[in-house]
Order: sequence, then structure tokens, then C-alpha cells
Amino acid sequence: MAVSADLLEAYARLTVRVGANVQPGQLVLVNAQVEHAPLVRAVVRQAYEAGARYVDVAYGDQHARRAMIEHADEEVLSWSPPWAVERLHALEADGGAIVSISGNPEPEILADLDGRRVGKARPRELAKQSLRLSDGIANWVIVACPTAGWAQAVFGEPDVDRLWDAVASAVRLDEPDPVAAWHEHIGRLEARASALNERRFDHLRFRGPGTDLTVGLFPQTLWQAALDETRSGIKHVANMPTEEIFASPDPARTEGVVRSTRPLEITGTVVRDLEIRFEGGRAVEVDASTGAEVMRVHVDTDEGAHLLGEVALVDGGSRVGRTGIVFFDTLFDENATCHIALGEGISASYAGDAAGKVNSSTIHTDFMIGGPEVEVDAVTAEGEVVPLLRDDVWQLPAR
Amino acid sequence: MAVSADLLEAYARLTVRVGANVQPGQLVLVNAQVEHAPLVRAVVRQAYEAGARYVDVAYGDQHARRAMIEHADEEVLSWSPPWAVERLHALEADGGAIVSISGNPEPEILADLDGRRVGKARPRELAKQSLRLSDGIANWVIVACPTAGWAQAVFGEPDVDRLWDAVASAVRLDEPDPVAAWHEHIGRLEARASALNERRFDHLRFRGPGTDLTVGLFPQTLWQAALDETRSGIKHVANMPTEEIFASPDPARTEGVVRSTRPLEITGTVVRDLEIRFEGGRAVEVDASTGAEVMRVHVDTDEGAHLLGEVALVDGGSRVGRTGIVFFDTLFDENATCHIALGEGISASYAGDAAGKVNSSTIHTDFMIGGPEVEVDAVTAEGEVVPLLRDDVWQLPAR
Repeated sequence: MAVSADLLEAYARLTVRVGANVQPGQLVLVNAQVEHAPLVRAVVRQAYEAGARYVDVAYGDQHARRAMIEHADEEVLSWSPPWAVERLHALEADGGAIVSISGNPEPEILADLDGRRVGKARPRELAKQSLRLSDGIANWVIVACPTAGWAQAVFGEPDVDRLWDAVASAVRLDEPDPVAAWHEHIGRLEARASALNERRFDHLRFRGPGTDLTVGLFPQTLWQAALDETRSGIKHVANMPTEEIFASPDPARTEGVVRSTRPLEITGTVVRDLEIRFEGGRAVEVDASTGAEVMRVHVDTDEGAHLLGEVALVDGGSRVGRTGIVFFDTLFDENATCHIALGEGISASYAGDAAGKVNSSTIHTDFMIGGPEVEVDAVTAEGEVVPLLRDDVWQLPAR
Repeated sequence: MAVSADLLEAYARLTVRVGANVQPGQLVLVNAQVEHAPLVRAVVRQAYEAGARYVDVAYGDQHARRAMIEHADEEVLSWSPPWAVERLHALEADGGAIVSISGNPEPEILADLDGRRVGKARPRELAKQSLRLSDGIANWVIVACPTAGWAQAVFGEPDVDRLWDAVASAVRLDEPDPVAAWHEHIGRLEARASALNERRFDHLRFRGPGTDLTVGLFPQTLWQAALDETRSGIKHVANMPTEEIFASPDPARTEGVVRSTRPLEITGTVVRDLEIRFEGGRAVEVDASTGAEVMRVHVDTDEGAHLLGEVALVDGGSRVGRTGIVFFDTLFDENATCHIALGEGISASYAGDAAGKVNSSTIHTDFMIGGPEVEVDAVTAEGEVVPLLRDDVWQLPAR
């Protein structure tokens, strides 16, 4: 790893101070892969500097996971070690913070395995509790750590320096004052969300090659951006980078077809050219040129996995999009362009009691559907059509 | 890591089949440092091949631990994450197996920190439950994984190939059939233990430069070697390498002075030239040229930490000793020469109910006291003196 110690510390500091916004006395969980150790170590140091009471690191290992998927009994594939679930329960009881490190060190490590088993291999209880935590119970952030293997997947060569440059630019570490740059950026995104919220649109429409999709919204739908807030009032930036305005749609009102515009890395498999047809909100056909079986099994995880939990708008001015790089990592690729997510919805995105309104699932899987060729309109209940994106340029003035 | 994939798989296979002796359907826990990932991955594969139901890897990170010791509140130093304790409880309930990977990737990573805090930094509950597991509740093994940092400490240069050669030789991976070689080796050690058990000695005496130590034995003391057995009857080799004949002495009858003959690596600190004076079984003076404070605080962990839990005999024919290398790792250094351990005793080493007889503590810390200059005698209740080791050569014929 050629990254400078200074960059690593600055990144870790941004992660802890602006991202998770770790509070004095908090328990902090860090979830990462073994290959992410250099960034993890900097994050742990910064978390203690910010006053964390205890920082607990759980390192995952994809090679261990691969061996499990190859050998374990069918029912073990979705089993969650109770102690790992207990760790998340403890975080909830304690009011702690989580830092998750993204950036799969080998994005196609599972590509040659039985897609049905790969798709089933998801620790259910753990996934369920993880989604709960992201719903106002913990202050959390996802950031990514470049590795040689990830760089190989992105550039065709293990040019980790180049990947660090791209990541550093995407998260504004190239600014003289990254923390100030983030506060300014958050303000811009929040203004854009406010403009959408004032209009209370009835639905969105995406039109482009292979895509003609309607996504229904509730009258109570609240667009959000960048800044999340825990139930206890801790503001945090859950994704770094983040360039999106997002909302939880009416899960019953998705109609039409959509073609993904970027590959989707999901559990060590890359799903390319994903196409989904929705009827009455539900994904009824799923196809792809690679990873189709993994994706179909994934969509069959539970009933809610067939429905949308999120729709998000990103324009071509995105720092991630401007790198021109396909990252094979959702944290980045979803911030390069518009996307939708199958699965769990976002309670905070509903003005009122979200239960039974926004979607419910043990998955939340974003995939990218935007780009210069995709026009996005918002339509009011009265039928007025308001252009939101044309040629990747944002059309609605911020208020 | 230059080690060949074949050697890694052979080592992992030996670890799983002969060491832990993993049984079909068992839960297997692997504990390691992040730097040990290459060996861990091979062990996980081999464990599944042996029929493990699920293999759970917990990677530790000494840099995270260092940050904790530097920054955390005093009471956090000995705190155990409840989920980590729960993991060990689950193993006990489940009748599972454990593989622990030794070989500190940076043996002096904590050497510059406040020795008092380093000595105190021990998760008590976790340590307690770990010692329980080693007492017949799980089939377990400790093996070591060479790393550049460990090689640096051993050789003064990061010659990891040379360290792999030494480790491979110590664990008999250089034999045409390592598994057969181990069965033969176990037989030799067991015969030596039997010869000692037939004599029922009253105490041992160690005499050498800086050492004049008496270690009392119970009439019920059982010498053991190599092969451990769980309460459910699974035979396993808990240490690889193992070259020792060991027993739990009468903790009240240690008298005299002892000077360590090899450095002791303990929690990221190297304790050199350790000297301890015992009175009525109890360590009453502890000194060292490096790491003295860490060691003193460690010995103050609890009352039992002042008393002996083990005495072990190793002759100069040991494969580990013959490498001529100081490993700065107890798994190896204790198998190069005679040693004693402060802290928790070994129940299986007492014929009868060991409770209240063998020592009890939340530590078990071996240190090396043998070598060519140290004479070891065994003395019967009648006062007959029987030489056990002279010039590192074993004197008592095996039966």
C-alpha cells in the first residue's frame, strides 16, 4: 500500500468526525475486510482521539466465506453466528457508532461458484439487525479502502495509487479543508432535497435505452440528502462519498422496465446488464449477462426484496461520476448516477408513521439506472411534468 | 509471503487433522491476527474439508489494541466485549474446536507504552473463558504463522522464508509423511511421561546460573505429553510444535530463585533476563532487564498469578531447540527447553478432583528456565535424587 500516512489519517479523521460523527464515550464498531487493515488502524486511532470508549473491529475474510459457500450445509448458508448478532444488539443498547469499510478486495471472488448457493449465502439475522441499525439507531458511515485487488478489477492492473487518487478526490480529500468542503457540499445537497420536497411530486419517470420506469411516491415522501440523524439527535453522513438526493418510494407503484447502466458488485459477484421488469410494484422478471442467478436468488430472499425501498437522483456534476471510473462498488457507483434499491425502505423518508408504508425486507440492494441517455421527470398529482435531469444536468432550481 | 501454497495446505491439514482433530459437524473457531490471513484461509479450507459445520474467524489487530491501551479509560483495559465472551460460551455449548494462530507480527509493538497500562490490558472474562476451554471442553491447537515482522524480530531482517523453514522443520513438515511422523513423535513423548509417572517423584530441582529452584509435586501429579483429550473423548495435540513433558505442580511448594534462559514475549512486550524469587510457592520478587513493569503488573493480575500452574521438561534433542533460534514466541521457545508457568494449572494433570489442588488463575504464562547449564533432578519422597537432565540430555530411560 503506497498511500501516504498523512492521507490515511486525514481520511480516517473525516470518516470519524464528519462521517460517523463519533461522540465522546461511544462504543464504536468497525466492520472491514482483512485487506483494509491500514485504513482500519487509522480509523481506530481517530475514533479514540474523538473520545470513543472502546473500538471493536470485526474483520471479515472473503476467502473464509468462499470456503463456507463451497462446503457448508445448505441451512448454514443463511445462518448468523449469534455472537455477531449480539454485537449489533449491544451497539443498539449502548447507543454506539459504526464505521463500515467498503471496497471489495476481490470483486469477483465468488463468480465461479454455484450462483444459487452464492445468492442464498446471507446471514439473515445479521442482515436484519444491520438494517435496523441504519434506521436511526446508530450514527454510522460507510467509506472505502483501496486495495490492489480492487484496483485490478477497476483498472485491469493493480494500480492502487490511481485508485487512492480517485477515492481521495471523490471524498474531497483533495480540498485544502476537507471538513469545510463537506459542510458546503452537504448544504448544496440539502437545498436540492428541499426543492423537491416543496413540490410533493406524485411519481418519477425514467426513460432511456431499455428503460421506461415509473416510480410512485407517497404524498408524505420526504427527499433526503447527505445528513442523517439518529433518534438521539446525532447528525452523521452515512455515505462518503454521497452525491444523491434519495427517498423511499411507494413500494406498490413501480411499473415498467429498467436496464442498469453500471455493473453491480454484490457479494463477490458482478451482475452486468441487469434488466428488471416491474408490475404492480413487484420485480417479476430479472435478467443479466453475468451474475443473473445470484441476482434472482437474491431478489427471492423475501417478499420485500421484490419491491423498491429507495429511489435516488444524482447528476453528472457528481465528483464520483466525473472520475469517469466504474468502481464495481456500490458506495461509489451509486453516487455517480441515479439509482434505485430493492428491499428495505427508509423510515425517515416518510412524514409520519412509516410502518406498513415504506418497504420492508432483509435486503437493501442499490443498482444504477441513470446517465446522459436517461431522462428523468417528476410528475405532479395533477399531471404536470417537470424535467429533473436532461443529459445528466440537474433541471430543478434549488430553493 | 513467499511460502508455497503446497506447504501452507500441508501445514493447515496437519493443524486441522492432527492438531485440533476437527470432527465432522463441529463448529470451529479460528483466532488469529490480520497478518496471519494466508494460513487462516488454508486452515478454514481444511476445516471444511474435514467436515466442519461452520468456521468462524476472529482476526485480532495489535494496532487497534495499541490505540486502546494508549487512549481508553483505565477500566476499559480489562473489559471484555460480551459478544466475544458469548462466542466462547457458544463453542462450549456446541462442543466445538478452536485453532489459535500464534506468532506475533510485531513482538515489541507495545514496548514503548506505559508498562503498567500494558500489563493491565487484558480482557478478564475472555481470558477466563479461554482457559476453561483449554481444560477439556474443546479440542484445540495453537500453531504459528510466520510473517515479515516476526522474522524481523527473530533474525534482525524480514527473512520470512528462513522463518518458514524453521517453523516447517519444528512441526515436522519436512518429513515425507508429517502425519505419521507426528504419531511416532507423540509415542516417544508419551513413553517419557509414563516413565516419570511410574516413579511418583516428590519434587524437582533446577540448578544453574542464577537458578536454584525446587518445584513440589503432588503424589497425584500426572505427567502428560503431546496428546490432550476432551471430556467427550476427542484426542488432540494442543501445541504444534510440542516437545515437552508437563505437569501441574503443587502450587504451595515452589521455593528458591529462577533466572529465565530465553526472552519471553508477552502482549507486545519482550521480557528479558526475567528473575523470580519464590517463597512458600509464591513469586515474591520479579525483576527483568526489559519489560519488568509489564511482568510485575501481569503477576499481580490475581492471587493465582503468583503461583505455578505448570512445570515442563524438554531436552536438547527438541527439534525446536535444534534450530538454534530464539523465536520470541512462547509456543516455540517453551518447546526448546524446560519451562515453568505462572497461573492456571492443568486439571487433567491431577489424578482425582483437581479443584483446590492445582493452581487457579486467569493467566497462564510460561517462561523458559532450561538449557545446557541447568541441571534438573527429580527427588523422591524418600530423598533419592534421580538426574533428569544433564547438559540438555535426557537421563531417565523411557519405559
